[in-house]
Amino acid sequence: MTAPLYYADYLRLDTLLDTQHLESARHGTPVHDEMLFIVVHQAYELWFKQVIWELDSILELFSKPTLDERDTRTVINRLRRIAEIQTILIDQVAVLETMTPLDFLDFRDYLFPASGFQSAQFRIVENKLGLRRSDRLKLAGAVYTERFSDEDRSAVETVEQEPSLFELVEGWLERTPFLDQGDFDFWSSYREAVHRRIAADREVVRANPLLTETEREAQLEDFESVIRQYEAIFDSERHRLEVDSGRLRMSHRAFQAALFITLYRDEPALQEPFHLLELLMDIDEGFTTWRYRHAQMALRMIGRRIGTGGSAGAKYLERSAERSRIFGDLYNLSTFLVPRADRPELPESIVESMRFRYQG
Amino acid sequence: MTAPLYYADYLRLDTLLDTQHLESARHGTPVHDEMLFIVVHQAYELWFKQVIWELDSILELFSKPTLDERDTRTVINRLRRIAEIQTILIDQVAVLETMTPLDFLDFRDYLFPASGFQSAQFRIVENKLGLRRSDRLKLAGAVYTERFSDEDRSAVETVEQEPSLFELVEGWLERTPFLDQGDFDFWSSYREAVHRRIAADREVVRANPLLTETEREAQLEDFESVIRQYEAIFDSERHRLEVDSGRLRMSHRAFQAALFITLYRDEPALQEPFHLLELLMDIDEGFTTWRYRHAQMALRMIGRRIGTGGSAGAKYLERSAERSRIFGDLYNLSTFLVPRADRPELPESIVESMRFRYQG
Amino acid sequence: MTAPLYYADYLRLDTLLDTQHLESARHGTPVHDEMLFIVVHQAYELWFKQVIWELDSILELFSKPTLDERDTRTVINRLRRIAEIQTILIDQVAVLETMTPLDFLDFRDYLFPASGFQSAQFRIVENKLGLRRSDRLKLAGAVYTERFSDEDRSAVETVEQEPSLFELVEGWLERTPFLDQGDFDFWSSYREAVHRRIAADREVVRANPLLTETEREAQLEDFESVIRQYEAIFDSERHRLEVDSGRLRMSHRAFQAALFITLYRDEPALQEPFHLLELLMDIDEGFTTWRYRHAQMALRMIGRRIGTGGSAGAKYLERSAERSRIFGDLYNLSTFLVPRADRPELPESIVESMRFRYQG
Amino acid sequence: MTAPLYYADYLRLDTLLDTQHLESARHGTPVHDEMLFIVVHQAYELWFKQVIWELDSILELFSKPTLDERDTRTVINRLRRIAEIQTILIDQVAVLETMTPLDFLDFRDYLFPASGFQSAQFRIVENKLGLRRSDRLKLAGAVYTERFSDEDRSAVETVEQEPSLFELVEGWLERTPFLDQGDFDFWSSYREAVHRRIAADREVVRANPLLTETEREAQLEDFESVIRQYEAIFDSERHRLEVDSGRLRMSHRAFQAALFITLYRDEPALQEPFHLLELLMDIDEGFTTWRYRHAQMALRMIGRRIGTGGSAGAKYLERSAERSRIFGDLYNLSTFLVPRADRPELPESIVESMRFRYQG
Repeated sequence: MTAPLYYADYLRLDTLLDTQHLESARHGTPVHDEMLFIVVHQAYELWFKQVIWELDSILELFSKPTLDERDTRTVINRLRRIAEIQTILIDQVAVLETMTPLDFLDFRDYLFPASGFQSAQFRIVENKLGLRRSDRLKLAGAVYTERFSDEDRSAVETVEQEPSLFELVEGWLERTPFLDQGDFDFWSSYREAVHRRIAADREVVRANPLLTETEREAQLEDFESVIRQYEAIFDSERHRLEVDSGRLRMSHRAFQAALFITLYRDEPALQEPFHLLELLMDIDEGFTTWRYRHAQMALRMIGRRIGTGGSAGAKYLERSAERSRIFGDLYNLSTFLVPRADRPELPESIVESMRFRYQG
Repeated sequence: MTAPLYYADYLRLDTLLDTQHLESARHGTPVHDEMLFIVVHQAYELWFKQVIWELDSILELFSKPTLDERDTRTVINRLRRIAEIQTILIDQVAVLETMTPLDFLDFRDYLFPASGFQSAQFRIVENKLGLRRSDRLKLAGAVYTERFSDEDRSAVETVEQEPSLFELVEGWLERTPFLDQGDFDFWSSYREAVHRRIAADREVVRANPLLTETEREAQLEDFESVIRQYEAIFDSERHRLEVDSGRLRMSHRAFQAALFITLYRDEPALQEPFHLLELLMDIDEGFTTWRYRHAQMALRMIGRRIGTGGSAGAKYLERSAERSRIFGDLYNLSTFLVPRADRPELPESIVESMRFRYQG
Repeated sequence: MTAPLYYADYLRLDTLLDTQHLESARHGTPVHDEMLFIVVHQAYELWFKQVIWELDSILELFSKPTLDERDTRTVINRLRRIAEIQTILIDQVAVLETMTPLDFLDFRDYLFPASGFQSAQFRIVENKLGLRRSDRLKLAGAVYTERFSDEDRSAVETVEQEPSLFELVEGWLERTPFLDQGDFDFWSSYREAVHRRIAADREVVRANPLLTETEREAQLEDFESVIRQYEAIFDSERHRLEVDSGRLRMSHRAFQAALFITLYRDEPALQEPFHLLELLMDIDEGFTTWRYRHAQMALRMIGRRIGTGGSAGAKYLERSAERSRIFGDLYNLSTFLVPRADRPELPESIVESMRFRYQG
Repeated sequence: MTAPLYYADYLRLDTLLDTQHLESARHGTPVHDEMLFIVVHQAYELWFKQVIWELDSILELFSKPTLDERDTRTVINRLRRIAEIQTILIDQVAVLETMTPLDFLDFRDYLFPASGFQSAQFRIVENKLGLRRSDRLKLAGAVYTERFSDEDRSAVETVEQEPSLFELVEGWLERTPFLDQGDFDFWSSYREAVHRRIAADREVVRANPLLTETEREAQLEDFESVIRQYEAIFDSERHRLEVDSGRLRMSHRAFQAALFITLYRDEPALQEPFHLLELLMDIDEGFTTWRYRHAQMALRMIGRRIGTGGSAGAKYLERSAERSRIFGDLYNLSTFLVPRADRPELPESIVESMRFRYQG
């Protein structure tokens, strides 16, 4: 038998609502707007904790030798939740923007050298997603954990060593069946389809009487560039070069599986995997948008001043937003899609194996 | 000389991020989604604290014998901030909705008798805005503070005794100059304008050859109903009856001032006051929308079940959303506007006094 | 070989951008804000056309004897699109609200008797979803198509006679296999589970030493009310009474299937059907929220005035928002869920048949 | 006496709803999703027409020799409306994203060479705001009007020659009184305040015993860079160099006025002007965000493919989003603010002249 539970005790409100302390007040000149600054950042930290909670459970499910279909749905639900939380993160920027630059100046100096970029939890989120140390811009020659306490630094760096969502998704994709079953070899069928398609397109351009010679040549040159793009993924050696150069990241096998899932996403067994890939892109985009909105807000708030915490300020944030995409290979898939009319036909046996057992 | 300040210390993250404790875990059966339930409600409480912070500063400014024009702008900025925070409150419902009814059932019983309606801070927000005890629906015969700790109940009830935003705005409106300066009597000019207008409209209906007799009569009857509406505000005795019956709330003088501000809002000295009235309606609408979304979410989550905390559940929430409008008199203003072409012309001296001194 | 296509021609911009004509200008007194009024409503109509386009394709897919699993995904994608469009519909209210009541008065009279409630396309959307004539509030004794042209009235009424989404979904649910395969009878297993659960809960209340006698009795009475709710669905005769009375709408068999899908939604073959049910509720909620926001906007715009077009104005809109839920039976499911721990265990053969063929 | 007006006639729905023609259908292979593509772009064009309508009225008001205070409020309301419309523009990207890359491929080829970047109205919006030809990225060596019809090209280019919002705002700022009245010289007082502030800050760093020598030197170097920033605006010659180089755009006098308004925004006569400056930044940010979201969508939709219309695709869009800020000088103001405690005190006579006449 347990005692009744009260709302305020359950949420530990006595403690929670006693963690807002104005530095400006401690210096004897309380500034009204500092409360907003604190509350917005604390709300961010609550949400980061929730995102980590969801990511941890997702990573655990993906760490199993095979991802049970029931778990795919769980993963999808939790990714969707992260995406919904990102909406809040982005909207919170607008709340912070109700503070004007002049208001911020009233307490900004008290915060030195703290700044908005020192959230250990956010670094943990990035690391769990799969952001690599090499992807991070070095801040004025310093590593990104420099301003953390020993404990936080250690927590952040530990995550760097653990399998990330990127890596686990890559492994899951590599295990996709169907790519080469029986006589069917998806990759060579796909290559043939691409070649047929380009040859046909080229013919259209050659025969188009409405094009001037210059236009025709320009368009035929475009094809060459398109073909070069395809060649970079057709061959596993060439693909490795792209990965080495940093233009691509995912293994060749995983990339093929992602393309397969995207092309045949209507098959019952691929619907949820396709949805999962979409959500990974949504989340990538969500964080990119958040960083971008945050950079714009900082630009408006501090102009080209140097940021609190000695960071390089708004410009840094903008560059950082660009560099931190994790599932860029998935965005890249669009480059290599072929229209439904051109995609290789699947053998009946494979189509069958992707249906439910109860179906006739 | 002060020691450097670190982000995690400034925000008391060690404490903040240690206030999430799953009841389901305490009972030996941890449920993943309970974390979301806690974090969402804690985020609500952080924002309620911020809203109270803003309201307190607004109430203080309004409590001065006269509201300095500089302070009008401050009040507006802080109301605008509250409105922006309401966007977050509403969006957070969508995050909570990523938890399904079945997920909620997994830990719902552990929460008994806590529920989402026991936020003392939210009751304080309502009381500070001006929600009256008589406006509240009694919950199953109980008063709304029943489930609070002594300390919370006392805090909530103390606020009931303090001047609310409604009352202070009412007083500020009553102090509006311009309504009767020199020969000008706004209220009688306005009444004449209304009468002229209605007479003209009536003539149009009478003369309209396209109307059938039935339509004509129906429309003329409509006018009678319109006239009765006007009569309820023309006379201060009649107005008092409306207030006594609960259909209106604001004093007659304050109502006149609000109508004046709305009609002549383009005059420099009335622009900010008009903006302020608009924001009061925005905030009223924001909380109404939030309660409504919350009620819809609860309906979806618990169906017609009885709510946790023994509250009457979703149906209660829906009714509550309707009843809690505070600045209904301002919405009501629209009923009584006259088109610009019909509004009484202001004497030049009053127009002049509403301009800036520097203007020629 | 086709001629090159230009953006402006493709979108028929010459025509599209020539359909905005101010009535106020035609009367010789152009009012700036009337353009907004026109453009907002035209944007609504464009989106309604798109919603009808999606609904038509969904209705067609559902009209097949069986819904292919590939098509389930298509239906889901298109429902999701409708839900996304609803976000725009709702946000457009905020754009319209940038026009103030006083601005609206400047041209309102020119619109008589047109009003915002005469969209034939929106009525078609409602009818295609499954809103019944009996669900509609009669407007001042008139039928809802009264103000339409003959052509529009005929279009709207034709749709009333066609199978609605509600009916087709109901049929699809009724065809759900798994409910009674071999020895397994879902409905009787479910009833037993509910009874076991209530008996256990009752025991907890009886034995709880922390409850006063009054509380204990109140809670035991609550159980009686819960049991009465369950009884209304346990028996098909009782269920029919609920349907006859209008409290429920869906057939008993369809209701059972929806409950089955909700309880076992993690099984691969039920994931997409569950997602589909969720989206139906999202869309119901989206239109309800839109009507509600629209009603609040109208309240603010016209107060308690009588609406243009002689409609009963804002109050009507508010009541209408409440009455127009179509998939209320699905919301109602939450009332009847049992926690995962209590739900009947499925026979292995059924679990097996809900997996994919390729799975070992 | 005028005939009754019907909703469908008023909005020209017969015409409006007959402007959606699928190219894919014309080619004999109708693709469901093409309708969405058309409707989204048509909705954009309706909103662009509305934005132009608002901009034209704003430009007209600003073109008067002096902007009446009543008109300031009108300008603000209309800018606010544009900002609200931008929310719709941005949300519409999410609707378009419900179409997947594979769906787009099904009809993409029919659109050649039309593309989403050929909206003459959007170019007109940009030109009216003040985007200069030199700010535009050349598309593959071509001018931005290349793909327009003669009529559209002429319309777009005509606007280039007209006074833009940027220029008119600049002129309005230059006419700000108060900057040098009587003995008061804002600019020199401001310069002194900045120098005092920097000297004090420098002293703090020199005396801080917690800094290592390296840190101290780094921070003192930062000051040098800050001082260099200030010098670029202190002197009108240096400022001209900044303008010539393209780093700044606004005239020196206008810049000073904007800084004055921002620093003393609480004074009654400056509240609305400050609000106006904020809205200009909001709108700049709105279009930047829209372009950015659009670029992300395009990246996801077409990958690194070459865009329809032969445009350089997603990469181009991303660069374009960065380059098209118009009121960058206003963002830049934040760099040069001083805390309230440090700002020059205004003479009583100036403070007085910024109050309303009616005030005692």
